[in-house]
Amino acid sequence: MIQEAIFHVPYGAYAYSLSPHHARITLRAKRGDLKACYLVHSDRYEVPDIYETVRLSFSGSDELFDYFQATIESKTRRIRYRFLLDDGVKRLWYGEQGFASDLESSGCFQLAYLCTRDLYSVPEWVNDTVVYQIFPDRFWNGDPANDPEDVCEWGELPTAATFFGGDLQGIIDRLPYLEKLGVNLIYMTPIFLSPSTHKYDTTDYFSMDPMFGDMDTIKSLVKEAHARGIRVMLDAVFNHCGADFAPFRDVVEKGAKSRYVDWFHLREVPVDMKKINYETFANGVATMPKLRTENPEVKKYLLQVAEFWVKEVGIDGWRLDVANEVDHAFWREFREVVRAANPEALIIGEVWHDSSPWLQGDQFDGVMNYLFREAVVEFFAKRTIDAEAFDSRLTKTRMMYKEQANRAMFNLLGSHDTARFLTVCGEQEERMRLAVTFQMTYVGMPEIYYGDEVGMTGETDPDCRRTMIWDEEKQNKDMLKLHQDLIAIRKQHSALQTGSYRTVIKDPLTNLYGFVRENGQESIFVVLNNSPRSQKAAIPGGASGTDLLTGKKHSGELVLKPYGAKILLLQ
Amino acid sequence: MIQEAIFHVPYGAYAYSLSPHHARITLRAKRGDLKACYLVHSDRYEVPDIYETVRLSFSGSDELFDYFQATIESKTRRIRYRFLLDDGVKRLWYGEQGFASDLESSGCFQLAYLCTRDLYSVPEWVNDTVVYQIFPDRFWNGDPANDPEDVCEWGELPTAATFFGGDLQGIIDRLPYLEKLGVNLIYMTPIFLSPSTHKYDTTDYFSMDPMFGDMDTIKSLVKEAHARGIRVMLDAVFNHCGADFAPFRDVVEKGAKSRYVDWFHLREVPVDMKKINYETFANGVATMPKLRTENPEVKKYLLQVAEFWVKEVGIDGWRLDVANEVDHAFWREFREVVRAANPEALIIGEVWHDSSPWLQGDQFDGVMNYLFREAVVEFFAKRTIDAEAFDSRLTKTRMMYKEQANRAMFNLLGSHDTARFLTVCGEQEERMRLAVTFQMTYVGMPEIYYGDEVGMTGETDPDCRRTMIWDEEKQNKDMLKLHQDLIAIRKQHSALQTGSYRTVIKDPLTNLYGFVRENGQESIFVVLNNSPRSQKAAIPGGASGTDLLTGKKHSGELVLKPYGAKILLLQ
Repeated sequence: MIQEAIFHVPYGAYAYSLSPHHARITLRAKRGDLKACYLVHSDRYEVPDIYETVRLSFSGSDELFDYFQATIESKTRRIRYRFLLDDGVKRLWYGEQGFASDLESSGCFQLAYLCTRDLYSVPEWVNDTVVYQIFPDRFWNGDPANDPEDVCEWGELPTAATFFGGDLQGIIDRLPYLEKLGVNLIYMTPIFLSPSTHKYDTTDYFSMDPMFGDMDTIKSLVKEAHARGIRVMLDAVFNHCGADFAPFRDVVEKGAKSRYVDWFHLREVPVDMKKINYETFANGVATMPKLRTENPEVKKYLLQVAEFWVKEVGIDGWRLDVANEVDHAFWREFREVVRAANPEALIIGEVWHDSSPWLQGDQFDGVMNYLFREAVVEFFAKRTIDAEAFDSRLTKTRMMYKEQANRAMFNLLGSHDTARFLTVCGEQEERMRLAVTFQMTYVGMPEIYYGDEVGMTGETDPDCRRTMIWDEEKQNKDMLKLHQDLIAIRKQHSALQTGSYRTVIKDPLTNLYGFVRENGQESIFVVLNNSPRSQKAAIPGGASGTDLLTGKKHSGELVLKPYGAKILLLQ
Repeated sequence: MIQEAIFHVPYGAYAYSLSPHHARITLRAKRGDLKACYLVHSDRYEVPDIYETVRLSFSGSDELFDYFQATIESKTRRIRYRFLLDDGVKRLWYGEQGFASDLESSGCFQLAYLCTRDLYSVPEWVNDTVVYQIFPDRFWNGDPANDPEDVCEWGELPTAATFFGGDLQGIIDRLPYLEKLGVNLIYMTPIFLSPSTHKYDTTDYFSMDPMFGDMDTIKSLVKEAHARGIRVMLDAVFNHCGADFAPFRDVVEKGAKSRYVDWFHLREVPVDMKKINYETFANGVATMPKLRTENPEVKKYLLQVAEFWVKEVGIDGWRLDVANEVDHAFWREFREVVRAANPEALIIGEVWHDSSPWLQGDQFDGVMNYLFREAVVEFFAKRTIDAEAFDSRLTKTRMMYKEQANRAMFNLLGSHDTARFLTVCGEQEERMRLAVTFQMTYVGMPEIYYGDEVGMTGETDPDCRRTMIWDEEKQNKDMLKLHQDLIAIRKQHSALQTGSYRTVIKDPLTNLYGFVRENGQESIFVVLNNSPRSQKAAIPGGASGTDLLTGKKHSGELVLKPYGAKILLLQ
């Protein structure tokens, strides 16, 4: 047994509550090292110790490690536990004191009390949600009356500064399209008053940008969307504001005498926008001064913003820009405020990396899952990693987080900050079709970047922000149909929403990849042939099943076309 | 290189702020595996990447692992970093993506922004603090007028239910003794109204127990103690109350009609104290009903308690009973309230195990360091582990936590919940003397359980709660003198308070153990001969120094008597 590779801590994603009386326990070991792994647990105070034993399930592997998991019930909610590890040669106990040949010497890990208030609770509605991200200036111009001057022709290629007249009325007008597509959560990049086209430099957090509409328009959008079963989410840019934000203007004008002088991270007073002697988003972006969220006044202001749009306008959640550069303490209060305003509100952070510190249950529900995207890009789009490496990446990311967070992820293929997925695929549609099939059947919310579903292309910002293609002749109808079909399947099958995830095929030579999603109700086998050759795949357990995409029945062995996929509801 | 043994995560004790512009980074590897380890870091947004490289220092070993650490400065507070690992055979990059032979492919860990509000801040005064724990009924009876009936004779052996008349006036009377001893923080077990002798079953959180005194007495105690440079800390029993707590009485009387019915974890209504159909402290302790701290009313009430004693009485901190069974969210708000009332207040949790979830900077400053105690008991008192295993235990515990937490630990040899240390030593004084020498020179606040310093003995509760020995003839004067001397040394030497910790001798055969504490000002070498034989020890680096206990100068080699120790201020 490679003891140095065994990892467990009694907190974080390795030990946490799933419900008031259930805990999930995870243990990591060197890949292939353990033959079996048991959890021995009891009430913390029980004397003599009356313990229960459960065998942990193998839950996946990454490049170096195997992961084992168990879900246990505790009537008293006070758990002490240790592991019994078996590598086929010897058995060792493992607990807080380390490894031991006897149970007592290993010591016990402690989940002292499964506190209800600390329980990680994400809205139940995330389970059947498919997200659609909209960049409002580029989706549809529903009200030319509110267009800014010098609007470009719809369809022209954008620069960083071009305006196209897209607005909220445009989104309202297109709700039937979105409903037909099947998405049920719209996330819009910022819509508050701001001089730019992207609006990540806010002038006024309480005002709609008039080029997008007014308070009535956003209220109508929310109302109309809700009427169609579609939720609406806005973008909270709280890390920084715009240069026209009144408090920043005041500081620029009045210097040390401004009452807002502590709202920003000033290196010097007076502020000099040429010298940029203050902290900004990234390095030296003069028009995006960083906000001092630790200042109680700034905090209070931003929390009022957070509450206002939820309470007054009825939005269903917030996406948080540059979320990992704002303090945890702020996000904890943010969660309290937003959830008090709407207990079902969703909170998604923009974090491109390991997001564990924000995903413990006290801050965000999920994040923009860029780690998911990277794996999908490398396997399906660029084909730079094989099926086994792909599975390793997915497992590693999934095991970083608690189950609640994994269900609440925004699993994106692209966004306004990346090249479009079809472009990353070198416009090889079959690669994208396979990736979308995977996205729609994986753990977490599939997120579509507007237009990807009709085959839009574009390099990174600003090219990925082209105007939406509405001309049906120019839309990729097969891609659209595939999205509609997959979204419908996702929304109809609970196993794809909340089922367990078990890899069954991950062939590094053929790049055949298959997995089973399973809950008490149903079992679905998804198999993806990420190769230019036809391949055969055995249905797990020799079962038979119905392909949810074609309705065809299959049994025994499947034949997959080049870049083909099947989603089999097993009998 | 054993890749499976390499561990780093970009959060928790492995990556955190030490100050607004400084971060501490830790990496763990298989013991003996790495020859060198470098950290390559830069600003997150810098393009092209202009990085700095620092070599991590070896910071200690536990049974399986070596730990390496570096402290880095960041002007912009936004850090990305990777490691370069060298095992003497090959060099590998290690980052968020795992291991790679080239820098780029390893990916970067991210410390996205060192937020000031998340900075773990413990009161600076912890550095030169030595704690004295008092069980008030047993320390001194300063006011016989407030004695309960049937008080036992001072010196009788206690049962779980006996009263001895000790009180706060008794503590006031003995302040000169404590001042002479040198301790500068008194932690008292509970003093609020309660029927028991230990008072962990609170009747009224806003009232002094009259057998201990009244509001004037506690205010006098705080005032008199402060005048002597001694701080005062109380015990907050917020996990549960007593059966006479008015809200619980109300529920017992009125059942479902009580307005306090949601203040407790009731399994059934009406409450039945015989059946114990409600949650309690531990299992079935009828007189200690568990409080529902997630109920906003309960929370509000307890936070008022927390604030009241800090604001109105001027106490310097709280020790939190059964702290790990109360929700994190509660403790976060508790910290805000207590620190708002007194920015220098200290918060210490009772957690007997890995306390990482409470020691991230948002909840406690430190904990009752029972993991420290266990190591000390096994090495010095019971001699069941050798010097190397002892060092492993210390390192493992120290590496669990951020530096701020380590400085704010209550390093105890015993408490009201354990047998007394001298008893655990089988009354072999030389073992205790050595343990105390270690305690007073280690990282964290030494905590003395009342009477240990005069050689008191006692098995676990109730025997460890005997009345304090004041008869000088019966006090162990050598033990008292040792405590006085060591406390004076601790308080005089900043290296013992905030210096780094470096093990230099950990001989498993001879049980000679030595370490160096070092800061910019001074370097102190402590060597402990935990064996019944005389032993020689080389002064590190062939230096010479002055023994702080005897004033004698030494150079080259030291001779240590059986169970002897030296504390050398190196030249």
